[in-house]
Amino acid sequence: MKILILGAGQLARMLALAGEAMGFSCYAYDIAKKQIVDPIQGRPYTGKLNEWIESVDVITAEFEHIDSVLLSVCQQSGKLQPSQHAIEIGGDRTKEKALLETLNIANAPHTTLSQSRDLPKVQEKLGEDVILKTAKGGYDGKGQWRIKNSKDVALIEGELQIFFSQHPQAQIVAEQCIPFEEEVSIVGARNAQGDWFTYPLSRNRHHNGVLVQSTVTQSNHPLQTQANEIFEKIVRHLNYQGVLAIEFFVYEGKLLVNELAPRVHNSGHWTQLGATSSQFTEHLKAICGKPLTSPNFLAPTAMINLLGNAQLPQALWSQPNAQGHWYQKAPRQGRKMGHINLQAQTSEALEAQIAHFKTQLLPDELTYL
Amino acid sequence: MKILILGAGQLARMLALAGEAMGFSCYAYDIAKKQIVDPIQGRPYTGKLNEWIESVDVITAEFEHIDSVLLSVCQQSGKLQPSQHAIEIGGDRTKEKALLETLNIANAPHTTLSQSRDLPKVQEKLGEDVILKTAKGGYDGKGQWRIKNSKDVALIEGELQIFFSQHPQAQIVAEQCIPFEEEVSIVGARNAQGDWFTYPLSRNRHHNGVLVQSTVTQSNHPLQTQANEIFEKIVRHLNYQGVLAIEFFVYEGKLLVNELAPRVHNSGHWTQLGATSSQFTEHLKAICGKPLTSPNFLAPTAMINLLGNAQLPQALWSQPNAQGHWYQKAPRQGRKMGHINLQAQTSEALEAQIAHFKTQLLPDELTYL
Repeated sequence: MKILILGAGQLARMLALAGEAMGFSCYAYDIAKKQIVDPIQGRPYTGKLNEWIESVDVITAEFEHIDSVLLSVCQQSGKLQPSQHAIEIGGDRTKEKALLETLNIANAPHTTLSQSRDLPKVQEKLGEDVILKTAKGGYDGKGQWRIKNSKDVALIEGELQIFFSQHPQAQIVAEQCIPFEEEVSIVGARNAQGDWFTYPLSRNRHHNGVLVQSTVTQSNHPLQTQANEIFEKIVRHLNYQGVLAIEFFVYEGKLLVNELAPRVHNSGHWTQLGATSSQFTEHLKAICGKPLTSPNFLAPTAMINLLGNAQLPQALWSQPNAQGHWYQKAPRQGRKMGHINLQAQTSEALEAQIAHFKTQLLPDELTYL
Repeated sequence: MKILILGAGQLARMLALAGEAMGFSCYAYDIAKKQIVDPIQGRPYTGKLNEWIESVDVITAEFEHIDSVLLSVCQQSGKLQPSQHAIEIGGDRTKEKALLETLNIANAPHTTLSQSRDLPKVQEKLGEDVILKTAKGGYDGKGQWRIKNSKDVALIEGELQIFFSQHPQAQIVAEQCIPFEEEVSIVGARNAQGDWFTYPLSRNRHHNGVLVQSTVTQSNHPLQTQANEIFEKIVRHLNYQGVLAIEFFVYEGKLLVNELAPRVHNSGHWTQLGATSSQFTEHLKAICGKPLTSPNFLAPTAMINLLGNAQLPQALWSQPNAQGHWYQKAPRQGRKMGHINLQAQTSEALEAQIAHFKTQLLPDELTYL
């Protein structure tokens, strides 16, 4: 099985590590460099993109912000999974919201802006506390504005004016800020035959819009059934193939969809330690049309992102039942450089382990923990 | 961390997959081709061996049958772990037996032959039922002769005569055949600081001298303590760094050492699914001087070798809590092509799962199961 991954970042890298283990040869298309590379060691391959599209068995993507011309070429080969349609829904908040409305899936009240002077109307409709997100391109907290009260409006209207003058075709989705109790997400997979499963719901913590920790302590979270129903609705409607992640707000005991990611997802990295098969393995199985069975949940597990770190923290190595993952990227302030998975027999023991781990860290390690 | 692995087979491949995940860059020296290659995708690197020895941080080996000149060069760099001495003990049965005698560790009664006409004396000393193994080079059942009774002697004496005429410097170790109840092995790791741990004992099944299945159903096997004592004695004496595997015969409730492997070992592949950290990860941590903690045993797990298969069996994909590992080697009758790890919550459920799996196999898959 030969698989081409659009994108050559850490998700492509971890897909390739999982794929090569089972003999699936993985190649990555570095979109910025317009070059096929080994997703693990980064060495370039020769050959043009269209030759690679021709020669591989399956094409997939590690992110959703991909030029639609490239996606169309891949889609036309008949090898792209998930489909261009599904990837574009993940890459455009207006399409994502439209899908949720079509399927009658709860999400935050929202509206779309095409010009900065619509801002006062947005507040009339959604209330004072609003978050604005560019429809395309922004993630990990980039391309977002928060209006907490009327004093912010003038300032942000100015910023939006600049934004729209630079991106006249752009749209911005404005959402009511939900005073959610918690953020959770579900990661699951579906194949062409319609087999699907989800992993246990993970509880997520963000800092400045960037995921810092995902924790899974039980396979029977009270909201699991609700999340599964939403997952099934979406994957069935899209005839989805591959791993899909859905981020939710928990508000008054109910799930509101925050975002879809048509790919393996940071909040599913815990499955590398906490389940009998990881999201990376299952994504590859799903897109290659293999049967899927639900992996077992093994024990309470937490994933901690390493943001801007220069290397894996020293404390990792003496931490029992811990796994270090490192992406070999050039360090940059706040950049996702790697992650750690920690496991314990009970959720209390896991909390204690995380707390102990924190005390072992050097001052410049894991400042967001 | 840059690591050079001597040997470019499946063990180097799985070491590299584990290493790259945590950001350890791994390179393999293909000894037959005299070339540095990517151990995962097999692509060659340029540069001479001595330049690579110079540029990496640590050197290790995936097998013990390595030319002593090459081992000496690596040893002199100060980067080889485990040491040349330890690797050579694993690669020479006379040295292995001498170590066991020095440390007073139980093993089968044995003697050494340097010429075919010593054969009758061997039987006088060890009894009728004897196994002969070349001191160097033979493994997986190759380079071995079995004498079951006096009728075999003349035939085998003839074969030995040919062998010694071709290899005048060779030695053969003759061992009393132990009517063992079971074969078990222990895999563990030790680092430069002296931290060490072992995984739970695995019960192994061989076919024609080749491992076909390793099963671990409990972390408190009655012989674990005995195995740990032997493991500790050996690694302490050798000031050993890395993973060491010890194969045992269980005879009258006691352990007799059959063989040492100064490396990651086939009977430790189950740790990829059954423990919180695999032997591959732990070997790399150990040789890089990282602290070691004992990985948790997760659940009853079995490893089944795929011998001569052309691909992973179809039945794998619909097997719950199963992992397929494939080495991307050219298929050959009886060759280790990949393996499967299966897990269940209880040992009874694991047995049932293996039995079910067997019924799903196609006629040419897993004939040795």
